[in-house]
Amino acid sequence: MSTNRNISIRPPRLEDRAPLEAALRATGAFYDFEIAVALDLFDLSTSGRDPSYVFRCAELGGEFAGYMCFGEIPLTRGSYDLYWLAVDPRWGRRGIGHALVDAMMVELCERNGRKVYVETSSRAPYDAARSFYLRAGFRLLVTYADFYAPGDSKVVFERDVSPNR
Amino acid sequence: MSTNRNISIRPPRLEDRAPLEAALRATGAFYDFEIAVALDLFDLSTSGRDPSYVFRCAELGGEFAGYMCFGEIPLTRGSYDLYWLAVDPRWGRRGIGHALVDAMMVELCERNGRKVYVETSSRAPYDAARSFYLRAGFRLLVTYADFYAPGDSKVVFERDVSPNR
Repeated sequence: MSTNRNISIRPPRLEDRAPLEAALRATGAFYDFEIAVALDLFDLSTSGRDPSYVFRCAELGGEFAGYMCFGEIPLTRGSYDLYWLAVDPRWGRRGIGHALVDAMMVELCERNGRKVYVETSSRAPYDAARSFYLRAGFRLLVTYADFYAPGDSKVVFERDVSPNR
Repeated sequence: MSTNRNISIRPPRLEDRAPLEAALRATGAFYDFEIAVALDLFDLSTSGRDPSYVFRCAELGGEFAGYMCFGEIPLTRGSYDLYWLAVDPRWGRRGIGHALVDAMMVELCERNGRKVYVETSSRAPYDAARSFYLRAGFRLLVTYADFYAPGDSKVVFERDVSPNR
């Protein structure tokens, strides 16, 4: 897993909202209502009203290049969901997704996290996402057949948070 | 699956709150914070403020004997979670749990539901619940090892909603 030295991971700023929305749209993987949910969470988080959603942005050469949102799953002790991870397609294949996951793993370790899960769809627009998570150290845990809709299954990946990596 | 003819399944009433709480406590399977969540949902639902949680109560000979709470999972089309099902231990072994599940399956069919899931814990107090769901037509889908806490896994059961059952 190589990361570019020019990538930096930092907390979100209000001015990230527009490039974040543009990145989500550019991936072509998300429905409008999903993008609306992502922006609602961004607003909640940046307003400081809900600390349960942690946003981190990736910058490449000073420009917004991608982001992720993760948080501890309610009613668990130390299990986290990686709710969103998106890289602007203009900045693809530069290790930005891996840099985001690496930064999350460090933070989860500091927070005494034990597990992190990510849920994706079986639909074709998520093919690249599913193979990305396997390369990023996650393993396939389960497929919920036809969960989202007929022909649209939920695929769940899991990764242990280990202090040693 | 035999159901007692004296069992009736009906929408909740405000006066169900106390026997519902007593039933949850009497099972010995729930933490206080879980009971608090169950009561919050009951209040939300009976106030009419949140139609996404459907409560149904079981009566045996005119007395509250158990209840369930289910709802469509957000961002899905036709996938439901059975969030809670509890039978007052005083009324155990009379088919009340099965009568509740049967009533839910009929309602899910009417609502064009396709799937219903139930999540339980691997801890010993849930042994009876897990074997109940297998007898009630669910199949084991997946175990999330150590999900809730170390040694406390999440066990997910699945059942198809079929008009023909």
